[in-house]
Amino acid sequence: MSLDNPEANPQQRLSDHLAEEIAAVDALIRERMASEHAPRIPEVTAHLVDAGGKRLRPLLTLASARICGYDGVHHVDLAATVEFIHTATLLHDDVVDSSERRRGRPSANLLWDNKSSVLVGDYLFARAFQLMVGAGSLRVLDILSDAAATIAEGEVLQLSMARNMATDEATYLRIVRGKTAALFAAACEVGGVLAGADDARVRALRRYGDALGVSFQIVDDLLDYGGATGEIGKNVGDDFRERKLTLPVIKALAAADAHERAFWTRTIERGEQGAGDLEEALAILRRHDALEAVRSDALGWAETARMAILELPEGPLRAMLHDLAVQVVSRVR
Amino acid sequence: MSLDNPEANPQQRLSDHLAEEIAAVDALIRERMASEHAPRIPEVTAHLVDAGGKRLRPLLTLASARICGYDGVHHVDLAATVEFIHTATLLHDDVVDSSERRRGRPSANLLWDNKSSVLVGDYLFARAFQLMVGAGSLRVLDILSDAAATIAEGEVLQLSMARNMATDEATYLRIVRGKTAALFAAACEVGGVLAGADDARVRALRRYGDALGVSFQIVDDLLDYGGATGEIGKNVGDDFRERKLTLPVIKALAAADAHERAFWTRTIERGEQGAGDLEEALAILRRHDALEAVRSDALGWAETARMAILELPEGPLRAMLHDLAVQVVSRVR
Repeated sequence: MSLDNPEANPQQRLSDHLAEEIAAVDALIRERMASEHAPRIPEVTAHLVDAGGKRLRPLLTLASARICGYDGVHHVDLAATVEFIHTATLLHDDVVDSSERRRGRPSANLLWDNKSSVLVGDYLFARAFQLMVGAGSLRVLDILSDAAATIAEGEVLQLSMARNMATDEATYLRIVRGKTAALFAAACEVGGVLAGADDARVRALRRYGDALGVSFQIVDDLLDYGGATGEIGKNVGDDFRERKLTLPVIKALAAADAHERAFWTRTIERGEQGAGDLEEALAILRRHDALEAVRSDALGWAETARMAILELPEGPLRAMLHDLAVQVVSRVR
Repeated sequence: MSLDNPEANPQQRLSDHLAEEIAAVDALIRERMASEHAPRIPEVTAHLVDAGGKRLRPLLTLASARICGYDGVHHVDLAATVEFIHTATLLHDDVVDSSERRRGRPSANLLWDNKSSVLVGDYLFARAFQLMVGAGSLRVLDILSDAAATIAEGEVLQLSMARNMATDEATYLRIVRGKTAALFAAACEVGGVLAGADDARVRALRRYGDALGVSFQIVDDLLDYGGATGEIGKNVGDDFRERKLTLPVIKALAAADAHERAFWTRTIERGEQGAGDLEEALAILRRHDALEAVRSDALGWAETARMAILELPEGPLRAMLHDLAVQVVSRVR
């Protein structure tokens, strides 16, 4: 994937193809995140919303509606809704993640930010629901409120399984489907519903979003260990240091001998990490081909996504959604 | 108000009058807060939801629907929705308040609880939206999503005005209307809307809930300074120690001489508090009759609430709502 070659970047092509609509989404987001009485709200959200977020999820909504023949304007409302839900989730994740990073001793300033993050996140959730109520479809509301519950459930499950060595692949997948794929799936599904697409197409869009979201998250977790080769580079090892049980470690644990199990118990469960431990972790992952196996899973999910959209009408939008599923896993090819 | 004399406790009478429906609300809450995959969710909410919360807000929804002649079952869904929103708000408030109390140095355990509070609160919000979508009325969804946005906006405004000596009565009222009265007002309004009541009655219910909520919060803030007499007792002075600018201090500040202003600046704005400062604060409040003035405001809002419901059909439910507005301010009579 190269940023200076638009032909090689499907998300950018999608964004160009839907340029007017994504501009309308941006304008709506800016308008709705304003608050007459609490100017702190846009201050807190500005860096998340203004700074050229990639708008992947709203693009999925816009594309899904258009690919099913929608020619109205409410897909813009739903796309903004999806981005608001995503942004609110990011704000609430921040509270969780930054407190992790500071090892339980955050600064007063961090706590102040935490408070703002919680309350401004709530504001964005509420704005999201206002927007989708405005779109006027109970079925859409049903899909998006289910997604919101699934996201929160996935996040809570992740929290309660943190550092728990009993986490298996099924639990990992449930967490990923909640915290990441649920919103991808809903973003696609509501586009189809809004367009009045038949059930087969709506289900296909949902399957596409779900599989795209799962591969997206697996790739993220794999890259945190340096991709399929496990090379040590910048930003490698954050999950290890934060003692997260992601798919690479889960696979290595399933194949671990007593010595390796003791290593994971010490570093992940008890959090006793020292110099050389990340290198040792990577060596164990390579020894069991765990990173290669994770890569293979990611490719499989991307393939599922590509298959799903064969139910949809052929054309440039379907080609771009196809290429997007290729792009997501291209970082680990 | 006496707990062992039901005749003197309008909320208990209301609860007895609507006993079957409030039992159905409780059952629905228990059912919907369960989570197959994340058992931590009911663990976190159990102490909030099980432990016999007073269910004031759901009672308002049930009573408002019934007083307008509703004889269906969806008022139970909406009452549970309102309680879920309230509980989610409490969970998110906890994050904010406990970090205040620990002066920016929470324990690791507190942070863990904070994370659970944020994410489980999100789950409850999502469940609330699922429930109200199930009730199937876009107008109800509109009212409750507006209320959720107003609540969050009020909380953010409160946060950004914390310790800010420029907070005036108008700002205080805006905060109170957001963080407390918005849900009271919506709880009443959706009952009327569900019952298909005419606009005059729906507006009357909304006004009643708004005024009841405002008086409820003003009374709370007054009791934190020992009520209208400002006597020092158990639990007096929390707001002072947490440097909150509530109505008593706002009124005293408006009338302060230079010496008193310096006192408030030191204790509230800078947070430099020592022995005797709470007593001094109470002496200043008494000197300006600030507590008596706050009491008078609370009584005025309760009177507004009682007037509002004259638009509604006479009968035992209206009498109980009337008496409820009397009860709310009875603690400071």
